[in-house]
Amino acid sequence: MIGIGVIGYGYWGPNMARNIWELPGAQLVKIADSKPNRLELAARRHPSTAMVTDADDLINDPKVDAVVIATPVSSHFPLAMKALEAGKHVLVEKPICDNSADAYRLVEAADRRGLALMVDHTFLYTGAVRKMKELVDAGEIGDIYYYDSVRINLGLFQEDVSVLWDLAVHDLSIMDFVLNQFPTTVACTGCSHVPGRPEDVAYLTLYFPGTLIGHIHVNWLSPVKLRRTLVGGSRKMIVYDDLEAAEKIRVHDKGLIMDNDDEKVNQMRLRGYRSGDVWTPQVDLTEAIRTELNHFMKCIEGAERPISSGLAAARIVRILETATKSLQCRGELLEVQPL
Amino acid sequence: MIGIGVIGYGYWGPNMARNIWELPGAQLVKIADSKPNRLELAARRHPSTAMVTDADDLINDPKVDAVVIATPVSSHFPLAMKALEAGKHVLVEKPICDNSADAYRLVEAADRRGLALMVDHTFLYTGAVRKMKELVDAGEIGDIYYYDSVRINLGLFQEDVSVLWDLAVHDLSIMDFVLNQFPTTVACTGCSHVPGRPEDVAYLTLYFPGTLIGHIHVNWLSPVKLRRTLVGGSRKMIVYDDLEAAEKIRVHDKGLIMDNDDEKVNQMRLRGYRSGDVWTPQVDLTEAIRTELNHFMKCIEGAERPISSGLAAARIVRILETATKSLQCRGELLEVQPL
Amino acid sequence: MIGIGVIGYGYWGPNMARNIWELPGAQLVKIADSKPNRLELAARRHPSTAMVTDADDLINDPKVDAVVIATPVSSHFPLAMKALEAGKHVLVEKPICDNSADAYRLVEAADRRGLALMVDHTFLYTGAVRKMKELVDAGEIGDIYYYDSVRINLGLFQEDVSVLWDLAVHDLSIMDFVLNQFPTTVACTGCSHVPGRPEDVAYLTLYFPGTLIGHIHVNWLSPVKLRRTLVGGSRKMIVYDDLEAAEKIRVHDKGLIMDNDDEKVNQMRLRGYRSGDVWTPQVDLTEAIRTELNHFMKCIEGAERPISSGLAAARIVRILETATKSLQCRGELLEVQPL
Amino acid sequence: MIGIGVIGYGYWGPNMARNIWELPGAQLVKIADSKPNRLELAARRHPSTAMVTDADDLINDPKVDAVVIATPVSSHFPLAMKALEAGKHVLVEKPICDNSADAYRLVEAADRRGLALMVDHTFLYTGAVRKMKELVDAGEIGDIYYYDSVRINLGLFQEDVSVLWDLAVHDLSIMDFVLNQFPTTVACTGCSHVPGRPEDVAYLTLYFPGTLIGHIHVNWLSPVKLRRTLVGGSRKMIVYDDLEAAEKIRVHDKGLIMDNDDEKVNQMRLRGYRSGDVWTPQVDLTEAIRTELNHFMKCIEGAERPISSGLAAARIVRILETATKSLQCRGELLEVQPL
Repeated sequence: MIGIGVIGYGYWGPNMARNIWELPGAQLVKIADSKPNRLELAARRHPSTAMVTDADDLINDPKVDAVVIATPVSSHFPLAMKALEAGKHVLVEKPICDNSADAYRLVEAADRRGLALMVDHTFLYTGAVRKMKELVDAGEIGDIYYYDSVRINLGLFQEDVSVLWDLAVHDLSIMDFVLNQFPTTVACTGCSHVPGRPEDVAYLTLYFPGTLIGHIHVNWLSPVKLRRTLVGGSRKMIVYDDLEAAEKIRVHDKGLIMDNDDEKVNQMRLRGYRSGDVWTPQVDLTEAIRTELNHFMKCIEGAERPISSGLAAARIVRILETATKSLQCRGELLEVQPL
Repeated sequence: MIGIGVIGYGYWGPNMARNIWELPGAQLVKIADSKPNRLELAARRHPSTAMVTDADDLINDPKVDAVVIATPVSSHFPLAMKALEAGKHVLVEKPICDNSADAYRLVEAADRRGLALMVDHTFLYTGAVRKMKELVDAGEIGDIYYYDSVRINLGLFQEDVSVLWDLAVHDLSIMDFVLNQFPTTVACTGCSHVPGRPEDVAYLTLYFPGTLIGHIHVNWLSPVKLRRTLVGGSRKMIVYDDLEAAEKIRVHDKGLIMDNDDEKVNQMRLRGYRSGDVWTPQVDLTEAIRTELNHFMKCIEGAERPISSGLAAARIVRILETATKSLQCRGELLEVQPL
Repeated sequence: MIGIGVIGYGYWGPNMARNIWELPGAQLVKIADSKPNRLELAARRHPSTAMVTDADDLINDPKVDAVVIATPVSSHFPLAMKALEAGKHVLVEKPICDNSADAYRLVEAADRRGLALMVDHTFLYTGAVRKMKELVDAGEIGDIYYYDSVRINLGLFQEDVSVLWDLAVHDLSIMDFVLNQFPTTVACTGCSHVPGRPEDVAYLTLYFPGTLIGHIHVNWLSPVKLRRTLVGGSRKMIVYDDLEAAEKIRVHDKGLIMDNDDEKVNQMRLRGYRSGDVWTPQVDLTEAIRTELNHFMKCIEGAERPISSGLAAARIVRILETATKSLQCRGELLEVQPL
Repeated sequence: MIGIGVIGYGYWGPNMARNIWELPGAQLVKIADSKPNRLELAARRHPSTAMVTDADDLINDPKVDAVVIATPVSSHFPLAMKALEAGKHVLVEKPICDNSADAYRLVEAADRRGLALMVDHTFLYTGAVRKMKELVDAGEIGDIYYYDSVRINLGLFQEDVSVLWDLAVHDLSIMDFVLNQFPTTVACTGCSHVPGRPEDVAYLTLYFPGTLIGHIHVNWLSPVKLRRTLVGGSRKMIVYDDLEAAEKIRVHDKGLIMDNDDEKVNQMRLRGYRSGDVWTPQVDLTEAIRTELNHFMKCIEGAERPISSGLAAARIVRILETATKSLQCRGELLEVQPL
């Protein structure tokens, strides 16, 4: 039986707690939150779990083997570092922290101690995203032309984090997972419409080696909710719509018809277009958080290695940092330095 | 009875010809196309119209009062200029021509002779776009926060014109019409995926004075067809979906709740969100091309002034030119010089 | 603090238990289920609640003030009757029981003892259905022409209950609530496709006094899930789509234009059609089960009277009984006897 | 060159005329309409075609080889009969006429003279409907469980024909074509909401031999336009949505899992459900009317036999007649007599 503690019982913490509560092999040992009224609610739901206002108390509890951190971004680094130093496995909400240097420090700290460090990039645990990766890895899509993602709605403004860090982090983690490639340069435009608040609309272009281009549109001020990704390739194209109840992934057998121009070697010539059938593969609809927590358990036991690893999360933060700088310069093209 | 000649019987010309053929007060006098098989088809459909292979013959025909130009972009300027010099009114397909200097020359030539110069920005003649303008002009939307447009599909590649000049020209003309504002700077990213061909994917950001931001996403390589524009404002927000059969415009009563912060003058404070009803106004569904041609007739008679005027078209070309330069520099921010 | 017991921890019971568990003013005292593995799961989730295999034990527990019955239909009547006789308030899953005579007996038993008897017609507690009723009651829709509902999906076949009793019961309860009218005759067609099983497809027509007609299409063998109701009236028309995330209710300002024919009194003449705006009112999106349980608490306290009352449920069962007879005679028109 | 005359230049006639005008191998010889203003419009569009007010003039014109009849239903029979007696091939708008006896007389008259008699059941010439038939014929769907069709919108009321004869005729012709089966009994319910006018809402159930059931819902008073058919089978299920721009046919790999119960021979037992991929086959998007007219030309030449034959049309009328009787008796089950 693995003992788990949850720090932060605000928006996301209750979801985590509820799922750990029912997770076979796990015990929800302790919940920490500085607000007494949140703890009261937690106690009602989980009467056999201990409640504390002090996160240190939880981190240092010997019955706690792993810590789930669901607090504001700025506290992720200190809490995660303390937990790792105390020898605990860590699952931290996204983004892992607010800068890539700290993210990398956490990766090292976990690695040195042989602890699992996992970041809650939930979408990687959905059947739809795994199916996309499977299709791309199998070469079904061919050479990837573009990765275009839209994630917009009338959203909760955050005090100190722009829409990029709140929403684009999802798209970046999915893109990193599916494409297995790292962008070379980024250019980001956007705007804030509430004085004194961070950007609420942003457009992020990512250039990769070759002709692959990525683009992410995030917006907290949209009247409609959209969650749609297009992956265009030389053989096929994917439409991933996360708001579809059942048919989240559609594979379009569409593309260009090219052929080798005999006279000039290495030259391709466009001959026309191909428009064929559409195929909607059945995807696993298990709740992602359950798959994720089962995977976390396996990682703690050493049987698996984190898919949404600290290192992947650090890469994402590196892109977010660079995009933020570009955004402040109205779209200046910046190199994304490897970690 | 106004005599009209159509130059170019390829993709768009037949549409024009068919509508002029049935237009009260107009006579389809002559059609010019260099390809005999196109003229043959035209003759079958319009047996009482003269057919010629030489555009000059049409331009110089005294029975022709107005010339419709539906040829490749590179020929727009010389043909339109000849027609104006021959004293004919001109309706030219979009974009007006391939550079703003020539566009401006056409504007001057028409102005000096008192001739109507109109550009086929068809969408300005749809009920949906006119309704959007009406709402914005009436202040229903409040301060505009952003204008976001997506126009993508598996499209016909063009030899010498990028997806910007082919598709974004529509969004730019609608945006110019609806917002009544000119951008100060633009940044454009994108990519070509067919060696030797122009860009097939492009993302154009437009900065306006204040906090208004525009963004246009165009793509010839999309597996799905989308034509959707969001206009976000301080009071309301519009979703315009041109692919909806009947309910093209939806007005969302959503927004931020702000108030004046007493202590600091001119500071606004975010208090929360507002999410209210959605309203779908009935819009005029008359075919745009018919409305446009009726308007062109009125402009020829001097009773109206072109809505999709040569000057408006020159402004659009100025933006396209600047965006193209930015695209070549991977999104470098460039000032859009006024004409 | 009101003590509540839940009988049946299969499909619906856990939902009820979880919501009661968090309900202010309520205490989840006891859960009964004959299957030990279900009780084990329940105990894990609700460690402070007593678990029993015998429903009688729960019904006779003096700490239990109210009983929630979430068992197969055939056991609804005996369990509910026992609970009422033991002086407990009752909330029973739909349909209330399998015949109207028994339903009526429960109504009487509750009435005589002054106990709350409520049936889980959940949809009556959604914002969307309440909005529809509000619009109809306020005369916004005018005279109702028709009520048409489709509720289809690839469903769980039930051993002893046809698709009518499983799905149409929802539409009938919504229709009864919204229209405030009782049908005079019904005709029902349908078919079973699994030998020895009840009908999996059914079409139910309901004739009301005047020209109001109702129709319900239910199907367990549909490849797509649909939950859509049309209410057509002389002034406006409603489309209620329960699968829409936010915009569940759309009010269309469409209809016929009629006028009085002067020569013949009481004769209306059709002059044309009216097609106006569409309006999507904001509806309360609170989870229905929470609203329902709060209402149940108020009913127990005597502060409110059940909206989804035993009497309403008995009416619905009366229609279901008659429809079933008609179905067996391939659509024979049958009178629906009032209770 | 085949000479074709069109009788009736109201709603549908112009479509026919325009397509014949451009049809290779055909000549639009003459158009007849009793209203001079309609002929004027026709003359403007087709200056080389003769215009007459008298249908007999057209029918007896020796340059006319085939007659297209696009007039009100009540005139279909006399006009078609005259044309056949004059030795002309006939293409008549749907429904072929207002009773099956007359329909059968037309079939005989055409047969005796070896003339083509075709009915404008346009949908049979769409790629979508042909694909459905192909799938059913190939056994892809397995045993057919049900055929369910919805065809509703705010429609043009007709003076003397109910919504059944106006709209259900489409569904019946498609169903007849796709299923290759004739119903044994029908039950039809519905209602009229405009005093003195025919029914504007109707629900038609069709029982076939075995467990196949059909249902058609037609409505002139719907606020939304729907054109959707479900075909459920033992192996797969089809959703045909005619309002989808490109993806009109979707094939769902869903169904029941049955097995033979060893103990009782001929008994099937339900073991569970199967939910697999969805496949959207590419369908031919050629305009149906063009395909239809090309086919009509081939039928005139004797190279093909009419798909939408007079005999098929007579079968449809027989069902409509029977349904109308059932409708008048509020859904009484009636046998459909074979022709």
